[in-house]
Amino acid sequence: MSVKVNVDLQKERQKCNFNMQEVTFIFDCGKEQTLQRKKIENIALNSGASIDAVPEECLSLKERYDNAVRKSCIYSRIVKNELLEITGLEAFGSPLLRRMADAFFKDISPFMLHLGMFVPTIIGQCTAEQQAKWLPRALEMQIIGAYAQTELGHGTFIRGLETTATYDPETEEFVLHSPTLTSYKWWAGGLGNTANYCIVVAQLYTKGQCHGTHPFIVPIRDEETHEPFPGVKVGDVGVRMGCNTADNGFLSFNHYRIPRENMMMKNAKVLKDGTYVKVARHDKLTYGTMVFVRVTLVKEAAINLAKAATIAVRYSAVRRQSKPKPDAPEPQIIDYQTQQHKLFICIATAHALQITGDWLWRTFRDVLTEMRGGNTDSLPELHALSSCLKAISTSDSAAYIEQCRFACGGHGYMLSSNLPLLYSFVTATRTYEGDYTVLLLQTARFLVKAWEQVEAGKSVTPTVSYLTLAATKEKVLWNDFAEGIIRSFQAVAAGKISACAETIKRHMKTGMCYEDAWQLTTVRLVAAAESHCRSVICQTYWNEIARLTASCSANVKIVMEQLVTLYLVYWALERSGDLLRYSTISEKDLNRLQDRYEELLALIRPNAVGLVDAFDFRDEILQSTLGAYDGRVYERLMEEALKSPLNDEPVKASFHKYIKPLTKGKL
Amino acid sequence: MSVKVNVDLQKERQKCNFNMQEVTFIFDCGKEQTLQRKKIENIALNSGASIDAVPEECLSLKERYDNAVRKSCIYSRIVKNELLEITGLEAFGSPLLRRMADAFFKDISPFMLHLGMFVPTIIGQCTAEQQAKWLPRALEMQIIGAYAQTELGHGTFIRGLETTATYDPETEEFVLHSPTLTSYKWWAGGLGNTANYCIVVAQLYTKGQCHGTHPFIVPIRDEETHEPFPGVKVGDVGVRMGCNTADNGFLSFNHYRIPRENMMMKNAKVLKDGTYVKVARHDKLTYGTMVFVRVTLVKEAAINLAKAATIAVRYSAVRRQSKPKPDAPEPQIIDYQTQQHKLFICIATAHALQITGDWLWRTFRDVLTEMRGGNTDSLPELHALSSCLKAISTSDSAAYIEQCRFACGGHGYMLSSNLPLLYSFVTATRTYEGDYTVLLLQTARFLVKAWEQVEAGKSVTPTVSYLTLAATKEKVLWNDFAEGIIRSFQAVAAGKISACAETIKRHMKTGMCYEDAWQLTTVRLVAAAESHCRSVICQTYWNEIARLTASCSANVKIVMEQLVTLYLVYWALERSGDLLRYSTISEKDLNRLQDRYEELLALIRPNAVGLVDAFDFRDEILQSTLGAYDGRVYERLMEEALKSPLNDEPVKASFHKYIKPLTKGKL
Repeated sequence: MSVKVNVDLQKERQKCNFNMQEVTFIFDCGKEQTLQRKKIENIALNSGASIDAVPEECLSLKERYDNAVRKSCIYSRIVKNELLEITGLEAFGSPLLRRMADAFFKDISPFMLHLGMFVPTIIGQCTAEQQAKWLPRALEMQIIGAYAQTELGHGTFIRGLETTATYDPETEEFVLHSPTLTSYKWWAGGLGNTANYCIVVAQLYTKGQCHGTHPFIVPIRDEETHEPFPGVKVGDVGVRMGCNTADNGFLSFNHYRIPRENMMMKNAKVLKDGTYVKVARHDKLTYGTMVFVRVTLVKEAAINLAKAATIAVRYSAVRRQSKPKPDAPEPQIIDYQTQQHKLFICIATAHALQITGDWLWRTFRDVLTEMRGGNTDSLPELHALSSCLKAISTSDSAAYIEQCRFACGGHGYMLSSNLPLLYSFVTATRTYEGDYTVLLLQTARFLVKAWEQVEAGKSVTPTVSYLTLAATKEKVLWNDFAEGIIRSFQAVAAGKISACAETIKRHMKTGMCYEDAWQLTTVRLVAAAESHCRSVICQTYWNEIARLTASCSANVKIVMEQLVTLYLVYWALERSGDLLRYSTISEKDLNRLQDRYEELLALIRPNAVGLVDAFDFRDEILQSTLGAYDGRVYERLMEEALKSPLNDEPVKASFHKYIKPLTKGKL
Repeated sequence: MSVKVNVDLQKERQKCNFNMQEVTFIFDCGKEQTLQRKKIENIALNSGASIDAVPEECLSLKERYDNAVRKSCIYSRIVKNELLEITGLEAFGSPLLRRMADAFFKDISPFMLHLGMFVPTIIGQCTAEQQAKWLPRALEMQIIGAYAQTELGHGTFIRGLETTATYDPETEEFVLHSPTLTSYKWWAGGLGNTANYCIVVAQLYTKGQCHGTHPFIVPIRDEETHEPFPGVKVGDVGVRMGCNTADNGFLSFNHYRIPRENMMMKNAKVLKDGTYVKVARHDKLTYGTMVFVRVTLVKEAAINLAKAATIAVRYSAVRRQSKPKPDAPEPQIIDYQTQQHKLFICIATAHALQITGDWLWRTFRDVLTEMRGGNTDSLPELHALSSCLKAISTSDSAAYIEQCRFACGGHGYMLSSNLPLLYSFVTATRTYEGDYTVLLLQTARFLVKAWEQVEAGKSVTPTVSYLTLAATKEKVLWNDFAEGIIRSFQAVAAGKISACAETIKRHMKTGMCYEDAWQLTTVRLVAAAESHCRSVICQTYWNEIARLTASCSANVKIVMEQLVTLYLVYWALERSGDLLRYSTISEKDLNRLQDRYEELLALIRPNAVGLVDAFDFRDEILQSTLGAYDGRVYERLMEEALKSPLNDEPVKASFHKYIKPLTKGKL
């Protein structure tokens, strides 16, 4: 394949001074993963099945849905027949398969939650007997499932869900019912028009008593005709900011009956006579699934940001604008310091999040092993970590994707750049599976407890051992080595957490109860949790890069260290107010940091295109007119424009019907 | 009309302790404006012509376009026949008419730039004779025009435009030509399928010499058939993040001829023989139009943010979630401090931007009067002001609209909330008519020059007189009265600007030329310009609120002062690093500020719904399921969902074609 590559991009690639493949291995978290990924990409993408003749966004809603189903079926067949053998069952819904799915769907497949939630929940919540019944059918795609928990009236507060499942011992059935409008299930992906089964989370009533929320497998549409069953009301929730091919649906029940056996009974049972039996470890294991999903979201945040950075950096190497010097040609916009300031932090952050996500993933697996042995001591720490990392990574990623879009000016606003869709996808992950603010407050609760332990002279878990820094009430000594910056971030976090604890006490002294005092400290608590999370990311990124580059070639070590240093210095400057309050950093130190930051931008500049090339996204995955490997930016913008149905015919119906009568004064 | 209003909202309205109408007058910049606005709203909206049976976002691209044209014609007729009499010609493209247009189009009318750019440019750039020919036809909508300046390859750098207009004295015609792909006009609103005329900005060549860019009136489509003329290639640029009913188009020419008289000759002429004659004041007047457009964008940023705040605050009063206390009901989410933190700054910012925009508008009119008398001394200051205010107001507004969306959780992600569309519209204004970074650097250039004057002991214009603060090199004394905070912000701006000047000098000492040194200071210069702009907004907001509330009732004074104080304290906390560097603020002061901030949140809380009600948006303008006056949030979400074509029939074509074969193993 001989593709003409933009000359400026070619020159950039010649400038790259490091071994790109080594960096690809780092970003993929290992050589094996890279090789596996490439194998999967070849199988999934080389057939061309992922490519649309007309861009998705030009289709009507119904056409988009039908097209997404078409591609989902092709993709499912590939996953079922070829990919699962390579990745194994646990890759379901993993970032690796997700990265592939991105080539098929600009946002999301209507089958995604079948693979990502329905199947894993069957594995996690069904008895062996139930698994034997449902799992093979689900894996073979004989049935297609959704997962419905959130309702119109309740998302964050699960205990407040209103859908009821009332056991009727006469018929040995559960009666599902939606008593109010707010009890309608809302948001479940794949539910609107696709799934014929749905896992429904409902308040379980038996023998007149409520036992809280439990999951049920509910047939909602006829397997033969696809018609919703009587007593089931199901449909699409309406158009969304993004994820419009995810088929998000609503669902309500009118005294709808399902067999007793359809309650997922691994963690709790209802016997034939209606007796409720709880099995131990229910909550802890549910916890586990939640952490798993969050880890996945952290890694997705990293990958999507890496895509945006690839698009914006390549475009910035191709785009030339303005003439700061009358006699010189227009510079590539990547040569502007402000552009480097917008983009290089995105490259660094993509690595930071990918590395921290992977570290969290490994920590999670260790904890899972411990848990299987009955030890759940690490769970609160892991929960606190996964909460804040999910919050910060999705929020940072979304904000930086927007920054990449801004950096591409008007052309970034074209959907064909793919930047708007990347944003609309990632910004959704900021909210679902735990809202940003709610999650940071969960982390804050853990942090305040940890601080109380430190105050009481007790030992604490590793990620919060730095809290002892706050005990002295003295500013930490500033130094601008990486370790010094990280130490200062820890001092900031420790200082803020201890200040929060004091604020809570101060409020309580006025007679408030703990919960009111907590409430009046939440703005500070969110900030404290953010500082904690930032210090964890900084430390993990720094430690892991040293480990991961240990056997790398010299220039890879250099450029990777430049990136992590950029990340640390960037955040030190962003949080100068915090550092001035909790460390001995001086005005002079801050000026030196700013100089160093700008030097780093200049040092990274020649390798910028090499760094995004090393993320190794195929054009099918980037789906971007601005970011394709060949840099044919303007040609692609024009080619995409011509695909719009608005360019099918030169004169539209509305001219004759409205415009002409208007201009002729006859309307 | 008896509408059942949500009980919680009703209670909130009873709590409001101030005269709402007085606040409406303040937001509208005067009682007269409010009355005029209401009159216009009644004319434009009471017929119901603005309401769609199927939500715009559910239609296909073509249907959306045709529907937008339909509504544009209705709206144009109303504007032409009824509204212009009330507002006068100068209200064309003004925020007032724009606010009305918002009820007709969720984003933008394909006619908007006819009113907003085509007509004003005819007024500004045509000779009296030319005006007599074109203006009546344009005002009567006998012709519909677009304005094409930006090309695929050039936006910011206008001198780099490539489209040529070469004079041919033989035929007394200009030959328009697009020599390259990058010379294609791109983005012009209304151009894709609607306009039959277009003002084209092209490099003027006559007698073998280039005279730079000039505007031409170019017929592009046949008035009878609407077919593009031979030699004209025109179409839609493809789907965008927002503004998809704006009909943004591309346009290229293949040696396309127009009469000599179609050059807009107020500021420069080409005589029959090809002689180029320049009339004075060309650049200065173009400047004027640009400032006018920017002022409009500042006010639109304010209004759109006010809409988002209205939606999010009302929703937060209706939504209840979680149980911080086991025995109490779920609180309204507006009772969470973190929610107040997200929302109240949006209310304050909407006022701040509206007030600053209005102040800029009045300043602009004064300068315009001066200019007509030949005095252009105030122009550089006005240009610098309009640049940074456009940049900061559109950027702040977009960011806070997203914050409002986040505050509405998942439901904010529904297009029917209208928050995503508000964002996509405002974020576009961050880029067009001067990119954020480019504009702040223009302001920075003015600021550095002003600082050099201060250093040289010369006097400077009013908005930068504070620069003398930096001359002493001493930290300004902190005090937390409003004036003290504003003074400190000025010290921050002055400190940063003088530091930038020093950095430039430092670089030049190494042998760099000024432009290279400037380039290596741009990250700092952008930050300095931001600080300058913030101090201007803070001071203007504070001064003007005192003036505007002078004759208001006591409680209006109180609540308006609470809002402006919230704005000042919020930014002081956001910029604590700056204040620690450039003022004597202490750790204790910062803690006191944080306490004060939280007290203000609690004080504003009972009036929150009253404050957004006072923005006085009719439901037709808000177009939001979450923000309607009656608070029927869940009912409206469901009603909108049911309008989606995806809910037309229970089983889609793709079930039979793809899903069933897949589930039966036959695909």
